[in-house]
Amino acid sequence: MWRASVLTIFPEMFPGALGMSLAGKALTAGTWALDVVDIRAHATDKHRTVDDTPAGGGPGMVMKADIVARALDAASSPDDTRPRLFMSPRGMPLTQARVATLARGPGAVILCGRFEGVDERILEARNFSEISIGDYVLSGGEIPAFALIDACVRLLPGVMGQIASAEEESFAQGLLEYPQYTRPPLFEGRVIPAVLTSGDHAKIAAWRRSEAERLTRERRPDLWVAYRDRKKP
Amino acid sequence: MWRASVLTIFPEMFPGALGMSLAGKALTAGTWALDVVDIRAHATDKHRTVDDTPAGGGPGMVMKADIVARALDAASSPDDTRPRLFMSPRGMPLTQARVATLARGPGAVILCGRFEGVDERILEARNFSEISIGDYVLSGGEIPAFALIDACVRLLPGVMGQIASAEEESFAQGLLEYPQYTRPPLFEGRVIPAVLTSGDHAKIAAWRRSEAERLTRERRPDLWVAYRDRKKP
Repeated sequence: MWRASVLTIFPEMFPGALGMSLAGKALTAGTWALDVVDIRAHATDKHRTVDDTPAGGGPGMVMKADIVARALDAASSPDDTRPRLFMSPRGMPLTQARVATLARGPGAVILCGRFEGVDERILEARNFSEISIGDYVLSGGEIPAFALIDACVRLLPGVMGQIASAEEESFAQGLLEYPQYTRPPLFEGRVIPAVLTSGDHAKIAAWRRSEAERLTRERRPDLWVAYRDRKKP
Repeated sequence: MWRASVLTIFPEMFPGALGMSLAGKALTAGTWALDVVDIRAHATDKHRTVDDTPAGGGPGMVMKADIVARALDAASSPDDTRPRLFMSPRGMPLTQARVATLARGPGAVILCGRFEGVDERILEARNFSEISIGDYVLSGGEIPAFALIDACVRLLPGVMGQIASAEEESFAQGLLEYPQYTRPPLFEGRVIPAVLTSGDHAKIAAWRRSEAERLTRERRPDLWVAYRDRKKP
């Protein structure tokens, strides 16, 4: 069973959205499991201190290596083969390829930092990989943990079935999704493109490919260049 | 007051994590407001149908333009000046600059799609901008909405004060954050870099800048190139 262990100072945020919808049904069905570790419960003083001022000065507080280590040791034994991930805007950008690799593995141990940071030594000593969900700053790592877990869980066998496979393939091709339409045929003066109701499957496929290429070119020149390069002989 | 209106078929996911921690305190304090609109409540048949099969075939279901329009009209009057955002992996990537612009505005109307998509005509007819939080696929737009709202709320006046300003500045410089350390001085055989406890503020600033540049070069060649280009005369 795929298992996520989340280390956080806001354990009450979990399972939250992960306990509903697709991920929630899969959690109830036992397709995956979630352990939430309250870092504060591993503090050693009477104030339950988890952070301290940055060495060298500066604003904010830094999460203490010794307390995170105690929380980690409670969540993960030395023979635990799951990757250790620290959600941080400093990390390598999360991609669908990384998600697919994680989903094929045994799960993940996920450390949610406060935005000011975590003592670098815990990341080095315990071999954490830093992962960023995007180039923006959030108040903590909990929402990024939601995103990472949701993305992995929907790829687990049985969670989405063939819909997931189709989506996967689309991302593997490196193009943005083509536009979708459904009933009613007329909406506020706008019709569904005639090709989609033509019944001509080859023409529909060609139109969708062409639209996916156009959207990718317009919105994501970075993906478009990579896509063209891959198609070259 | 900054106001987010979220259109979703999972209203029970909100406020969730946004009702806790920094965003939750600011919500209670009235710094921002959250309206959650249940799209399903605006369905017109007895089965409360919100989606239908894609025109032209293919897996999954597409959210209906007419039902989303009814939900939108209930959430947002014609004179509502807030930007309309559709969370989607097809969208323009969310950046901290976009977050700052949104946070300075009146709020946002956020449509959470299901991963199969939304009828393109509602996006065109009602002028939605598509925003992606990253190049991975989630089960729906709700977790991306959490990310977008959390990122904006922490920049609202009074929510974080000078800490936020410092972070902002750091992102504006286009570099990843330097490593952070705090007590204890010795952790599992690892010491805090001596420069940080030297008391020499100029040396500390130089070390941090050098480390931020090194991390950016190693992990994000894309950001590094943009950073160097901006520094050229």
